[in-house]
Amino acid sequence: MLPFARVSLIGMGLIGASLARAIRLRMPTVRLTVHDADPAVCARVTALALADDVTDTAAAAVIDADLVILCVPVRAMGGIAAAIAPELSAGCIVSDVGSVKAAVLADLRAALPAQVHIVPAHPVAGTEQSGPDAGFATLFDGRWCILTPDDDTDAGAVVQVAAFWEGLGARTQVMTPVHHDLVLAVTSHLPHLIAYTIVGTASDLEDVTRSEVIKYSAGGFRDFTRIAASDPTMWRDVFLSNKDAVLEVLQRFSEDLSALQRAIRWGDGETLHALFTRTRAVRRTIVDAGQDTAAADFGRASS
Amino acid sequence: MLPFARVSLIGMGLIGASLARAIRLRMPTVRLTVHDADPAVCARVTALALADDVTDTAAAAVIDADLVILCVPVRAMGGIAAAIAPELSAGCIVSDVGSVKAAVLADLRAALPAQVHIVPAHPVAGTEQSGPDAGFATLFDGRWCILTPDDDTDAGAVVQVAAFWEGLGARTQVMTPVHHDLVLAVTSHLPHLIAYTIVGTASDLEDVTRSEVIKYSAGGFRDFTRIAASDPTMWRDVFLSNKDAVLEVLQRFSEDLSALQRAIRWGDGETLHALFTRTRAVRRTIVDAGQDTAAADFGRASS
Repeated sequence: MLPFARVSLIGMGLIGASLARAIRLRMPTVRLTVHDADPAVCARVTALALADDVTDTAAAAVIDADLVILCVPVRAMGGIAAAIAPELSAGCIVSDVGSVKAAVLADLRAALPAQVHIVPAHPVAGTEQSGPDAGFATLFDGRWCILTPDDDTDAGAVVQVAAFWEGLGARTQVMTPVHHDLVLAVTSHLPHLIAYTIVGTASDLEDVTRSEVIKYSAGGFRDFTRIAASDPTMWRDVFLSNKDAVLEVLQRFSEDLSALQRAIRWGDGETLHALFTRTRAVRRTIVDAGQDTAAADFGRASS
Repeated sequence: MLPFARVSLIGMGLIGASLARAIRLRMPTVRLTVHDADPAVCARVTALALADDVTDTAAAAVIDADLVILCVPVRAMGGIAAAIAPELSAGCIVSDVGSVKAAVLADLRAALPAQVHIVPAHPVAGTEQSGPDAGFATLFDGRWCILTPDDDTDAGAVVQVAAFWEGLGARTQVMTPVHHDLVLAVTSHLPHLIAYTIVGTASDLEDVTRSEVIKYSAGGFRDFTRIAASDPTMWRDVFLSNKDAVLEVLQRFSEDLSALQRAIRWGDGETLHALFTRTRAVRRTIVDAGQDTAAADFGRASS
């Protein structure tokens, strides 16, 4: 039994397009209607045959839908919600895929009518690439999708959205929006901020040329460039919408970095070795949990 | 024409074992003698048939060698050099693979007799794994090996060592030890320090469990855990031996991070978006330069 018969996706970037492909593959009887604000993206989605219908407006895409998923940058959610509100059927479920949940839930509540169910969600998956061509059907396989209802959310709607994501290969977990935002601040937002920073720092040195940074990037730097190549608009919105949690974990990171800086300055090899031994074990746990490959160097082609 | 007939490797970790395998593959007529301070590693090297001879002492391994390469943590180089000094033939070339060059060159000069040629080298390649079983013959393919002779180094010896590395598939570049240490501080040492720090920070939060960090690591965190799983002793030595350059680039990184922190606090989306757009281009350049895969997500198995 499929939890939904008519699904609408608004926004056909990496996540929207991957969702469309996954639905096509795993739930072929679902009637899928999509919209993207960029006409070029809509044309590409049509060419790729990712949906049954591609509409000119967001509002037109949600008519008769029983599940609507907003796949746009988090600060665009409120505007889209306001645009689709008049066309939503009573009892329809509106969800999203944003990396920030408290701010998005507030925006959706403010814009949507009381007779629709709001079930915010966040599939913790992605790549550094963007746009409909970057999407692929197996993106969510074995990944976690976090649902963040609040006390006002209909429990049956949460069960349906969880069943939907599990049908696409994901595992699901329910937590509060505030806790989600703190967990993701450390597992996703801080890593992106650090990666963006270090790539910027390396590009700005006077005594080391850009060409040298590129040539010798296999020493470690290149690992950071992958997530620093992620979509700029999406990530700007994440940092502005999850300000408090990001600043909190950033403060802790800075303190820890200062402690290591001090250990280097004073030649305290024991402190360094103790931390490096502890962090090695974390990698093993992630591989054991099925959240990364065990192959050396991420299994990059050369090794 | 092979540049060397008898090669000795001291230290059979990831780099030493990869060198042995690459020499076996690309220079099968070379007589290869190796030593490791750990008897268990020597036994494993024998079982894997990585060399013609495995000796009980470092000194015994270098008798009659025309090239000796030290593949040990950078702060162990001086002690090994002193141990092998009495057995080195006149005219022998002594090289190394350390990630720090000025300190190692000073240690080698202090320990070695004047009639051997010292040609420090650093192949910018590796994985997060350690030990002889982690080595593989293609590790250096298309990677850069930096040679850091000083004004006293025999030019012919430098040419020979460059030919050796090129014969193993690497590209070579000559620069001063001090410049090397600055370039690697930004392309390798700082990224490792940051990765170790953030993995430590994430492990120490009270409000986010270790299990949550692991489960949701696909949001970006897992990329950092790879290099934070690198050998603790090797990296402790790198930071202690390249203190000045590491502290210099770390200071710049901290300043840049403070600027981003301020932009987030004050809601300055333009500053964030401008940086994120700039960093995206760096990734493209690294892929174009053949220093990383173009496949999404490093080509991890799931995508």
